[in-house]
Amino acid sequence: MLSAPAGAQGPAGQPWDAVFRTLPKPANIEASMKRLSARPHHVGSPYDKDNALWIQTQFKLAGWDTSLETFDVLFPTPRERVVELVAPTRFTAKLEEPPVAEDPTSSQKDEQLPSYNAYSIDGDVSAPLVYVNYGRPEDYDTLDRLGVSVRGSIVIARYGSAWRGIKPKVAAEHGAIGCLIYSDPKDDGYYGEPVFPDGPMRPKDGVQRGSVMDMPLYPGDPLTPGVGATGNATRLAVKDAPTLTKIPVMPLSYADASPLLSAIKGEVAPEDWRGALPITYRIGPGPARVHLKVSFNWDTKTIYDVIAKIPGRTFGDEWIVRGNHHDAWVNGAEDPVSGVSAMLEEARALGELRKQGWAPKRTIVYCAWDGEEPALLGSTEWVETHAADLQRHAVAYLNTDGSGRGFLSLGGSHSLEHFLNDVMRDIADPEAAVSVWKRAQARALSTAKTPDDRAKIRDRADLRIDALGSGSDFSPFLQHAGIASADFSFGGEDADGIYHSVYDDYYFYTHFLDTDFAYERTLAQTLGTAVIRLADADLLPFEFTNLADTVQMYVQQLRDLLKSKQDLVRNRNQDLVDGIFAAVNDPRRPEIAPKPEVVPPAINFAPLENAASALTESARRYNETASAARSKLAGNPQALQAINQKLQQCEQQLLDPAGLPGRGWYKHLLYAPGFYTGYGVKTIPGVREGLEQGQYPQAEAEAARAAAAITRLATFIDSITSDILRVPVKK
Amino acid sequence: MLSAPAGAQGPAGQPWDAVFRTLPKPANIEASMKRLSARPHHVGSPYDKDNALWIQTQFKLAGWDTSLETFDVLFPTPRERVVELVAPTRFTAKLEEPPVAEDPTSSQKDEQLPSYNAYSIDGDVSAPLVYVNYGRPEDYDTLDRLGVSVRGSIVIARYGSAWRGIKPKVAAEHGAIGCLIYSDPKDDGYYGEPVFPDGPMRPKDGVQRGSVMDMPLYPGDPLTPGVGATGNATRLAVKDAPTLTKIPVMPLSYADASPLLSAIKGEVAPEDWRGALPITYRIGPGPARVHLKVSFNWDTKTIYDVIAKIPGRTFGDEWIVRGNHHDAWVNGAEDPVSGVSAMLEEARALGELRKQGWAPKRTIVYCAWDGEEPALLGSTEWVETHAADLQRHAVAYLNTDGSGRGFLSLGGSHSLEHFLNDVMRDIADPEAAVSVWKRAQARALSTAKTPDDRAKIRDRADLRIDALGSGSDFSPFLQHAGIASADFSFGGEDADGIYHSVYDDYYFYTHFLDTDFAYERTLAQTLGTAVIRLADADLLPFEFTNLADTVQMYVQQLRDLLKSKQDLVRNRNQDLVDGIFAAVNDPRRPEIAPKPEVVPPAINFAPLENAASALTESARRYNETASAARSKLAGNPQALQAINQKLQQCEQQLLDPAGLPGRGWYKHLLYAPGFYTGYGVKTIPGVREGLEQGQYPQAEAEAARAAAAITRLATFIDSITSDILRVPVKK
Repeated sequence: MLSAPAGAQGPAGQPWDAVFRTLPKPANIEASMKRLSARPHHVGSPYDKDNALWIQTQFKLAGWDTSLETFDVLFPTPRERVVELVAPTRFTAKLEEPPVAEDPTSSQKDEQLPSYNAYSIDGDVSAPLVYVNYGRPEDYDTLDRLGVSVRGSIVIARYGSAWRGIKPKVAAEHGAIGCLIYSDPKDDGYYGEPVFPDGPMRPKDGVQRGSVMDMPLYPGDPLTPGVGATGNATRLAVKDAPTLTKIPVMPLSYADASPLLSAIKGEVAPEDWRGALPITYRIGPGPARVHLKVSFNWDTKTIYDVIAKIPGRTFGDEWIVRGNHHDAWVNGAEDPVSGVSAMLEEARALGELRKQGWAPKRTIVYCAWDGEEPALLGSTEWVETHAADLQRHAVAYLNTDGSGRGFLSLGGSHSLEHFLNDVMRDIADPEAAVSVWKRAQARALSTAKTPDDRAKIRDRADLRIDALGSGSDFSPFLQHAGIASADFSFGGEDADGIYHSVYDDYYFYTHFLDTDFAYERTLAQTLGTAVIRLADADLLPFEFTNLADTVQMYVQQLRDLLKSKQDLVRNRNQDLVDGIFAAVNDPRRPEIAPKPEVVPPAINFAPLENAASALTESARRYNETASAARSKLAGNPQALQAINQKLQQCEQQLLDPAGLPGRGWYKHLLYAPGFYTGYGVKTIPGVREGLEQGQYPQAEAEAARAAAAITRLATFIDSITSDILRVPVKK
Repeated sequence: MLSAPAGAQGPAGQPWDAVFRTLPKPANIEASMKRLSARPHHVGSPYDKDNALWIQTQFKLAGWDTSLETFDVLFPTPRERVVELVAPTRFTAKLEEPPVAEDPTSSQKDEQLPSYNAYSIDGDVSAPLVYVNYGRPEDYDTLDRLGVSVRGSIVIARYGSAWRGIKPKVAAEHGAIGCLIYSDPKDDGYYGEPVFPDGPMRPKDGVQRGSVMDMPLYPGDPLTPGVGATGNATRLAVKDAPTLTKIPVMPLSYADASPLLSAIKGEVAPEDWRGALPITYRIGPGPARVHLKVSFNWDTKTIYDVIAKIPGRTFGDEWIVRGNHHDAWVNGAEDPVSGVSAMLEEARALGELRKQGWAPKRTIVYCAWDGEEPALLGSTEWVETHAADLQRHAVAYLNTDGSGRGFLSLGGSHSLEHFLNDVMRDIADPEAAVSVWKRAQARALSTAKTPDDRAKIRDRADLRIDALGSGSDFSPFLQHAGIASADFSFGGEDADGIYHSVYDDYYFYTHFLDTDFAYERTLAQTLGTAVIRLADADLLPFEFTNLADTVQMYVQQLRDLLKSKQDLVRNRNQDLVDGIFAAVNDPRRPEIAPKPEVVPPAINFAPLENAASALTESARRYNETASAARSKLAGNPQALQAINQKLQQCEQQLLDPAGLPGRGWYKHLLYAPGFYTGYGVKTIPGVREGLEQGQYPQAEAEAARAAAAITRLATFIDSITSDILRVPVKK
């Protein structure tokens, strides 16, 4: 393993990153949160722009160069919202989150966006209701077995498991004409803990707002795919925007959903479909019949990205980019203000560090994005606008979003895995007398399912980091532009049920989450340390043996996935031949036997395996060579610049300009959000989704394409190794 | 494998058992159910005796020799029942099951036993309330980790998982002073299906009555352990009866439990502790404070066992015993009337068969037990009274109890496994166009968890039958007297929530269970077929290779259990050394780390393994020899009698007169109800419970004792094999 580069030396011989870690103050972070979450600040609201300007001022006060970059994007807001049960009895959904006396900002009715799902189309439909569990593809497989069709129906799905935008998408694919999404108390209510204001969980009238745009196709402004939504961009007509939903959608509280669900009859829902309402969950269709009417103001709004820079003194053309969005659905103290407030404290502390004499080798770029909530608008439009510059200059993108109390959760490019582990090892946990690394490892060990899993965790030098899917602003950097990225948050100790509701505010955060801002400080320490080390490293701390190990693991997972699908189909076919389904069928509740299927064919994984082997070998050679060359490189900025320039472009070797099948915006062949999971990552997505969706020729073609990308990276790493060997040793 | 003996030939060359299967009529079974469940008929009630006399009459009408055998047993009934929440608010539990208009017998208030738990002691206690999940030993381990003690508290446990009598027993062991047991809607209410009368599940005021006597110590009359409760038996004083509870107990409906549970604060219950009430499940203690007051009439009641016989013509001293209880908690249409009505129809059909010319070779004894519900009273006292005769004459005991619609569920002595499989193969399922064997296999395949499990099911000639724990009248036969036993029921297609409530009645059964009595007919066909084949077989159809295979499996399970305990302790100790518990602890919700433990020692399993090997070899030899000798034995009743006499005593070789550690009434070293599960079986219980409870010296000593019993059986089988070889071939 490459050891992590120490920060340059600061006063009293301390590394600058160690000095930095003494600077962030909880009180400052709390003050920022109070200010930023004082009023609703969604896209297009007065306080959204006000916050952007205030954030810009904070960077200026800390000595940063700042600019405000704007884009004009499609952002619909509700005009009409009606959800009614019209049979067998009548009930009109309230669709309101009431103010809570203790919570001062919950009463800012005039400025709050009402509950809705952004980028639902307009619609006015009445139809029988069908309960579809989480509304994932596999839930419709279950409905098929039960003989229930949603064609011509309105579906009601519960929030959770998959990203919300998947639910109307899959419902429409199956012929539904409307979609309701509600927060079940099992997933997000009294089942977990007492409800707000007595506890942290979602109260009965609380609603989760959120976007339902088809972001797995592409994120950002629906009218300007692939290009920045600047004044002179060519725009699609709204009616032609492919990422709007196909059917109208509305979110509901469980108080509003309960009468609807209670009125559904028909087959009882399978056990794992049942929530925590005091009812028998049944599937329908009907006799519950619902009227759903929504229409929206299809306006263009201006969004405000704040961009702040500290110029690099040695490698000024190499950028360390760090971001967090500032827009919220309502007051958003947790999402996103807990993240952006910590980021502002990093900015202040980095400014203070400069006063103490620190000057980073590389340029540091901090970004406060607007419009993340609707569709990663601010980051996507910025990345699309500056893609060429970013691919030339950006070393890495470090993201945060909402954050709380507990364990560090970390996802990112696996070429950064070792570097990030070293950062974690140097951050003190504020609750346990250990590093955040040790605490994260302890959690992994204590939640491991098998002795084998435990042994793997104990035996591996580094903790595995997650692969990144979507759900925050890293997506355009990593998956569109190929910038190595990482995403950080603390959490896992406090449950909450205020996500995207009016109750996500300062009162809530200071009563139920990181109430003393201790982990907020730790978050600032973690990100600042990573930024300083990336900015000041001689040789960029990319490391490829962990990446190669991870790719080997993914390839094995793909083999296992195919094998398990083959076994499943073989067993099911055997059961059909043996009459097992007929023999267990209950004539009073008949189920429809599955159809016999062709067993999935063998797939040629050899190119992927060879590519993974080549990467493993290239990574090993690079490690050896780079370790041995450290001292000869240290005094040679010119050689370093050339090598670093290539290191920074390693992630881009995994892109393919054609992008993923059917969604060319996503160009990374190793990481993508799932087409049917939305947030959840699919690794080697072309192959994995080909297998999952039964597109075996696609899976085989994609295996070859992914293998080519991995081989391209291996070859590129080999060229860096050769470059290092060619650098002369100074006398 | 030994092939099953065909029944003797009846008219037109058909086997008698095939003729028998044409005789049972659903309408007769329904008529019996209607009569027997027309009024409440618990122990000591007028209709309990009335039913016994009516049953006796039915046997007489079918041509059986009958007798009524009575015992005088301790049977407490409620005098006072008070459950009140006294803080922080007041609520008095209703403790009443209201009549339902559609259901005519639900209004027979005057004759119904109120809801209570029989053999609770009297008590009057007030204390803070603690929620203890299912109230099993492992739930108290969880409480320890959470730092919650029940000492001096009243616990509230939900019904389910373990037998109800375990809950007050374990609560008292941990220092609780009272115990409430309620039916959670998750396990037994609207969570599963709509509630009665709209559906089959338990309505909010429905209560599960039931015994909480410490039956894992011994069942039957608490005052006459080990001997029949006849007029002249020596009796313990009530105060000295060890099987009464140590603390007062009351059952609750979920309507009565909900205000109590809602008032509990403190730590939120772990996820798998949470039920389906619309509340946050919390543990306490308190601030909910409960007043529990119960007192009982500690009366002696007379119970009425109906015994009916058909004399055997060839082997009259060999008895095939068959039973089902007739007493209920209230009207009991399902439990037990569905079983006893099917049994009466068998009796009628066997009588009809005799009119057609059939005369069984062996004596058939049918028993309608009283007092099963309180404590297996009728069967236990009868077995204790006639133990010596039974051990000399009883070939097997076949039991049923409540039964419904669906799949045959079968438990029993594994020396009968192959015989019972053959019976199942010849019974037509009334819903699927296959045998009940095939349908049971299909279900096992379709619910198997792993491909390996599926392969094992497909590859084994016979379906595995369950080992018997307790919960019905087979227990004294098998576990006290060593009579090979089996227990049969159909079910698995209909859920119901009327167990031990006033709603278990004719209206319910004919609306929600085996409404057309098709499976009731199948049950009669199944049991009658087994009885006829056992009664008419030349060589008794015991078979030991399945038993040996099962013993091998148990021994492997014991090895695995020890290994998993060792791994668990080693891992936990390692985690303690590594500070894992401290590192993951949440200071706002601190948990108590477990104590380091000595790793469980290695145990000498060699005697058990050698015994299992010996049994395997003896079983193989017996099979070969018996198969080859079939024709020479057929014409030699004298030789058969001697051999059968020994075959019938094989099960008794597995008894040890000293019984299990701490509970000498249970003498079978292979099968027992778990001391801490109540119904659930523990196989090779001395060893298994020694391991589970960390009594390793006991486990090793018990392994030797179980090995001796298994070896004794192997040797005994060898002697039978020799006897067969010695029988001369007739010229």
